[in-house]
Amino acid sequence: MMFEVNAFDIEIGQYKVMLNLADARELGMNAGDRVRVRAKGVSLTAILDITTQMVKPGQIGTFTEAHQRIGEVKEVDITSAPKPASVGYIKRIMDRDKLTEDQIRTIVQDIVDNNLSDVEISAYLTTLYMQDFDSQETEWLTRAMIDTGERIHFDTHPVVDKHSIGGVPGNKVSLLVVPIVAASGLLIPKTSSRAITGAGGTSDLMEILAPVEFSGDEIREITENVGGILAWGGATNIAPADDKLIKAEYALTIDPYSQMLASIMSKKGAVGADAVVMDMPVGPGTKLATPTDGRAMAKDLIDLGDRLGIRVECAMTFGGSPVGRTVGPALEVKEALTMLEGGGGPNSLREKSLALAGILLEIGCMAGMGCVAARGEGKVAAEKILESGGAHRKLVEIIEAQGGDPTVKSSDIEVGEYTGDVLAPIGGYVISFDNKRIVEIARSAGAPADKKAGVLIHKKAGEVAKKGEPLLTIHSGKEWELQRAMNDALRDMPIVVEGMLLERYPRYEEI
Amino acid sequence: MMFEVNAFDIEIGQYKVMLNLADARELGMNAGDRVRVRAKGVSLTAILDITTQMVKPGQIGTFTEAHQRIGEVKEVDITSAPKPASVGYIKRIMDRDKLTEDQIRTIVQDIVDNNLSDVEISAYLTTLYMQDFDSQETEWLTRAMIDTGERIHFDTHPVVDKHSIGGVPGNKVSLLVVPIVAASGLLIPKTSSRAITGAGGTSDLMEILAPVEFSGDEIREITENVGGILAWGGATNIAPADDKLIKAEYALTIDPYSQMLASIMSKKGAVGADAVVMDMPVGPGTKLATPTDGRAMAKDLIDLGDRLGIRVECAMTFGGSPVGRTVGPALEVKEALTMLEGGGGPNSLREKSLALAGILLEIGCMAGMGCVAARGEGKVAAEKILESGGAHRKLVEIIEAQGGDPTVKSSDIEVGEYTGDVLAPIGGYVISFDNKRIVEIARSAGAPADKKAGVLIHKKAGEVAKKGEPLLTIHSGKEWELQRAMNDALRDMPIVVEGMLLERYPRYEEI
Repeated sequence: MMFEVNAFDIEIGQYKVMLNLADARELGMNAGDRVRVRAKGVSLTAILDITTQMVKPGQIGTFTEAHQRIGEVKEVDITSAPKPASVGYIKRIMDRDKLTEDQIRTIVQDIVDNNLSDVEISAYLTTLYMQDFDSQETEWLTRAMIDTGERIHFDTHPVVDKHSIGGVPGNKVSLLVVPIVAASGLLIPKTSSRAITGAGGTSDLMEILAPVEFSGDEIREITENVGGILAWGGATNIAPADDKLIKAEYALTIDPYSQMLASIMSKKGAVGADAVVMDMPVGPGTKLATPTDGRAMAKDLIDLGDRLGIRVECAMTFGGSPVGRTVGPALEVKEALTMLEGGGGPNSLREKSLALAGILLEIGCMAGMGCVAARGEGKVAAEKILESGGAHRKLVEIIEAQGGDPTVKSSDIEVGEYTGDVLAPIGGYVISFDNKRIVEIARSAGAPADKKAGVLIHKKAGEVAKKGEPLLTIHSGKEWELQRAMNDALRDMPIVVEGMLLERYPRYEEI
Repeated sequence: MMFEVNAFDIEIGQYKVMLNLADARELGMNAGDRVRVRAKGVSLTAILDITTQMVKPGQIGTFTEAHQRIGEVKEVDITSAPKPASVGYIKRIMDRDKLTEDQIRTIVQDIVDNNLSDVEISAYLTTLYMQDFDSQETEWLTRAMIDTGERIHFDTHPVVDKHSIGGVPGNKVSLLVVPIVAASGLLIPKTSSRAITGAGGTSDLMEILAPVEFSGDEIREITENVGGILAWGGATNIAPADDKLIKAEYALTIDPYSQMLASIMSKKGAVGADAVVMDMPVGPGTKLATPTDGRAMAKDLIDLGDRLGIRVECAMTFGGSPVGRTVGPALEVKEALTMLEGGGGPNSLREKSLALAGILLEIGCMAGMGCVAARGEGKVAAEKILESGGAHRKLVEIIEAQGGDPTVKSSDIEVGEYTGDVLAPIGGYVISFDNKRIVEIARSAGAPADKKAGVLIHKKAGEVAKKGEPLLTIHSGKEWELQRAMNDALRDMPIVVEGMLLERYPRYEEI
């Protein structure tokens, strides 16, 4: 049937068209069906929506993406088209049937090509949340995610990488691990994310020092030239399926396990990593409540790595407190840079960075890919690179290669000029420290959009505070955001101080 | 933060607004988040979408529904708002936790109020597909669906009803059951659906005889006046959650079991039914492959009815062949009307209608609600009402009460003038008969939108056909649609005729 085109200039990220209910009935079509739209020399499959008001009978409403494909025509022919095969495969997962490699690849390709509606992608993620893929299916999913995007091939090996599964605030360790590892002579093409619900992802931090948006080719070139990079993965076309899925995962506040494994490993596979160290923070508020949970995930990540030919080493790390004493982009960069310059800093940051870098220095040796440090000697080797200033010189090289200012000093990093202290209401010990609240306060102060906003932590769990001593200093670039963050912190204190006597049980006669 | 309003005149069935990515980052918001939109004297919670092109920084894009609520203002204030509690409750189902009555009620209310996004509704249905509610949760779901819509209260009792879970073509039995039961003196306020994937729902059929769109009050009034009605449920506000869910169920081609039970029973509860007979077609291609499946569902429907105070009787019926010999609105109405007029017709239609009506005539007796027929005597009583012409006179009354022409005769019903016969290619027995293909051919001929389109079935499974005898006659109101249906039928024959000798196994020397 022919329809008159009524173009709506609305971008919706999909090929979508609208028909009037009367016409849809006549054609026996319903919302969510696929239609083949044909104009002179062009044809495309679009998702059908149905309206009683937006378009009249005889008209077809097109949105920007579909309209651009069809071009400036007055009429198009509409016929019924089958739903993507993926919809049936998603139904198979719901029915707890196993999928074949081809079926999984088709789902991933349809996600990348925007062939699935929001409703269908939501069903895919929900299904996978409730029904894990087995390890074979997860391998196929990972390979499909790698193959449907850009891949980086290095001539030199080994190529190593580091990933944190997240969940602990202030985790600026990549700013130390990448230059230590690159200074050792290994290649480390690190891509990372921006914060979605956090106070700052590694990309938000690195962006203070240098641009972070590079193509796959640029990532390869910079890594080959200086040994490492700290780039934003979102600017590349690496594992593009993940970018489409993250939106729905966020909306549903779910992170289906098999998909999470595949998303992590596909990014590592696509940059050509031979070996990867996984930072797995364990503790309340992280993704891994107990070491037992951590071990189960470690086993699955190692198994998936083996299937892909990537040596994975998992490091369960302490996730109970922030790493270092800063949360928020500029504060975190200042802390990391100070440590690289030899100015010292929190033990938690130093220990964790050296431990993770040390594993990567050993990993080539263990995997027979060329030795930097023997087993058990990686951390000491990493420490030497940090102490010698080699790691700092390497970060400067990386900053310059990414187009930043190589003369930058930690003292140059500007933090929010509006500051407020949260004081200890009584003297005693920090008996409770809430990571999530710290992140909320940093966000309330403006992080990560305001890079100068964040929280400086004076007292961590177990430490002694005198009455009136500052527990936190909040920084913000705007006075009203500082005020909002201060109000948030005082209304619901993230740090609880108590004397050693927690409660006195009264005598009977006093009740 | 204040934003300049940029109104897009697009209806999307939800309160949705768009912000530029830069502003969303600044506010720490992501797509799918909820925002509170405040203008002079008005405020509403909307679902946030994020764009890089549709609106500039500093602007907020509104769609029709939100814009109508806000009114003609130039600026609005935007603040972050929590997601509906329902999103967390849906997550609980995913985690296989039990829900409370309040939590289930909140989900249903949010569905009715359009507070959930497509992504969230899809997750709800997918979850429920994979994880049934228990019987207590299903009762709460049903009650919530009843309470969030219109309810009909009758002064006279018992009120009875009939429902078919569907899956068999040509199932026009309601056109006989309703007048037989109403003629017996019972009230039967039957609401039904239009076809979504079928060749004609009961409403599509009845609409040939009379209008079918009535409010709840009108349904009550007509039922009280003449004993019965055949109305379209979609025109009422009965169990409105179901209408919102059907769209996503269709898109995902799933029909989650607990939701199906609740949807069926909520409609019966909302019209005040005391007793219901369930027509449950069993056989290949229906929703119930075997009687065992049927028995499990029957048990659950009866249990749910008991919890709601509705006596449910389940009738597993033969679903292997179409009911009667017609598929498509006008052909089916003609067949049913002929039988009511005393003109005879297929045994399958007569037997099934009398059996179902008979159960309803007995049901009051069994439930102690006033006897029409004793147990085991319902079918005979129904037969008498049909034979005496009482059922025909009652249908005429119902047609008149609904505003149709009471003088209508079966011979007045016009069927598609373009006809084509599908002939038996050889002589033999019908060894295979594909219900789904019959429906597809009827749809291909134009049904249900073209009410005159459909299929007349000459040979059903087991019957003898001579070579060249017609197996089917296809009717259509349009020549090209007839041609399309004929091509479809001949390309993939729904009826297979074979001689008694199915295959001859050759001697060795002939291979």
